[in-house]
Amino acid sequence: MDEFVLIDKYFKPLSRGFGAALNLTDDAAIIKVPPGSELIITKDAVSEGLHFIGNENPALIARKLLRVNLSDLAAMGAKPLCYFLAVMLPANTPEAWIKGFVKGLSEDQKQFHIYLAGGDTISTHGIKSFSITALGTVIKGKALKRSGAKVGDIIYVSGTLGDSALGLLSLRAKRSNPELIQRYLLPQPRLALGQKLLGMANACMDISDGLVQDLGHICRASGIGATIYKDALPLSKPARKLIEKDKKLWDSVFSGGDDYELLFTVPKAKKYAIKKLSAALKLPLTKIGEITKGKDVKVLDRAGKTLEIKHKGFRHF
Amino acid sequence: MDEFVLIDKYFKPLSRGFGAALNLTDDAAIIKVPPGSELIITKDAVSEGLHFIGNENPALIARKLLRVNLSDLAAMGAKPLCYFLAVMLPANTPEAWIKGFVKGLSEDQKQFHIYLAGGDTISTHGIKSFSITALGTVIKGKALKRSGAKVGDIIYVSGTLGDSALGLLSLRAKRSNPELIQRYLLPQPRLALGQKLLGMANACMDISDGLVQDLGHICRASGIGATIYKDALPLSKPARKLIEKDKKLWDSVFSGGDDYELLFTVPKAKKYAIKKLSAALKLPLTKIGEITKGKDVKVLDRAGKTLEIKHKGFRHF
Repeated sequence: MDEFVLIDKYFKPLSRGFGAALNLTDDAAIIKVPPGSELIITKDAVSEGLHFIGNENPALIARKLLRVNLSDLAAMGAKPLCYFLAVMLPANTPEAWIKGFVKGLSEDQKQFHIYLAGGDTISTHGIKSFSITALGTVIKGKALKRSGAKVGDIIYVSGTLGDSALGLLSLRAKRSNPELIQRYLLPQPRLALGQKLLGMANACMDISDGLVQDLGHICRASGIGATIYKDALPLSKPARKLIEKDKKLWDSVFSGGDDYELLFTVPKAKKYAIKKLSAALKLPLTKIGEITKGKDVKVLDRAGKTLEIKHKGFRHF
Repeated sequence: MDEFVLIDKYFKPLSRGFGAALNLTDDAAIIKVPPGSELIITKDAVSEGLHFIGNENPALIARKLLRVNLSDLAAMGAKPLCYFLAVMLPANTPEAWIKGFVKGLSEDQKQFHIYLAGGDTISTHGIKSFSITALGTVIKGKALKRSGAKVGDIIYVSGTLGDSALGLLSLRAKRSNPELIQRYLLPQPRLALGQKLLGMANACMDISDGLVQDLGHICRASGIGATIYKDALPLSKPARKLIEKDKKLWDSVFSGGDDYELLFTVPKAKKYAIKKLSAALKLPLTKIGEITKGKDVKVLDRAGKTLEIKHKGFRHF
């Protein structure tokens, strides 16, 4: 394999249809921003043994990498535009692996209307790792942020919580829980929801490191507190089944990573609009609590007792 | 060390003064592009043992990482705006290492007027690696590209060639060549030159993988050929001294990596303007050949004989 053949054969086709990529022949891409819009830019990196196991289908690794970045765009209400990709691979990586990886990107590019605009392909003496910088557009001044939550806002989450963390546990224990494992391997970036929340939500983020920790980020950014109700947290059927057998697995719901659901706060007056939106998107949007004075996240059980959440979420280092 | 403490203590200060970074509290940055401008975006990754040795001062690793990206912006004539940083570090990396790394970024941010706008900090089971996505601005439609070279254009390079490759050889052989080693450790992105070449150069790129290979990229992108003259290639005094002792070291000039000089083509009519520009910037701009019909890069010696360049430049894989 040769670096330039690799780019020509596998990566150039991913930029086709996106003129700003200059067919990947230049040092950089030239990005025009539509008038009235601004750019939303996010960057995530993933590393073998940490964000992915390594023996997955390479197409799935690629799709998850792209989707975790798309999830950040969704959190700000942005529409995907293009992405830049850094690929760090051991020199002995088989060409078939790369072919599979690129096939995954290609599939998801079509699904999410995004194009490769540039990047870097390097060999490494270490393990596989990747980084994507994703660009999206949003109407000027309208982007959703973490900092806008207000006392009295209702706190919502999309979808169900904890599935991905339970899926990873199942994978590691070699237990068959295909629905949960799929949630771990292939998250769903909530792009349509994010774009619909523009002008509706006061604050929004995606849950990537665990509900309690991530809600804490909204609290700090907004200078407020939050109360959520354990009983209100939306669980999938397979997750509920596992948790009923082993109460310790509630940890996966409170602080499991990789949910990639949107966590957002909405003024009370808009709760019917959220109900209608949920029906229109065919996506559960569940009220899990409310924004309060103070500065911490409180989790209450059915009896109104405050639960102590020791491990609040995933952290590197 | 804790991921969020790390971000608060070390990375947030690097975003100060750049509002679009949202103080690094959000999922993404919101980038406004000045009216009449477009964005130039480039992404480069570096990995321990390949792009840096590993035992360097971490400040130097950081500065080189930033500078190789700035060099790509320079090649398109762009003015630096901001950058996104992915940091992949083994979990046992000492805090002092990170402190040094961030100090290097901070120094170069001031020198090159660029800010941190976002990124990701992850632990890895592998070696250190990093990726930067750098953004710059250029007046709409004016960016320099590789594809504009025309038959009859004069080919120029800035500065001197081969110093960095010779510096790396000296480092590896533990020979003292401080001037050359410095060129390897700390390249100079030619930002002022790139911006001045807007409207003057027909094609431009930075030499990162070796002169002959990189000039080949201009030939392919522009659909032309190029002839360059060995005797015309600009060498520094210490490089000339080493090469006179060992003629094989010419390879470092033809195909050594990490020059980060600009390689550009200019219509003949503008050669006096280039002379004036060289004086104004106090930077040698040397005529090394001309653009021809055909499609290959020819290197001629003093006698007009075509030299065979076996190893044309650095490639991964």
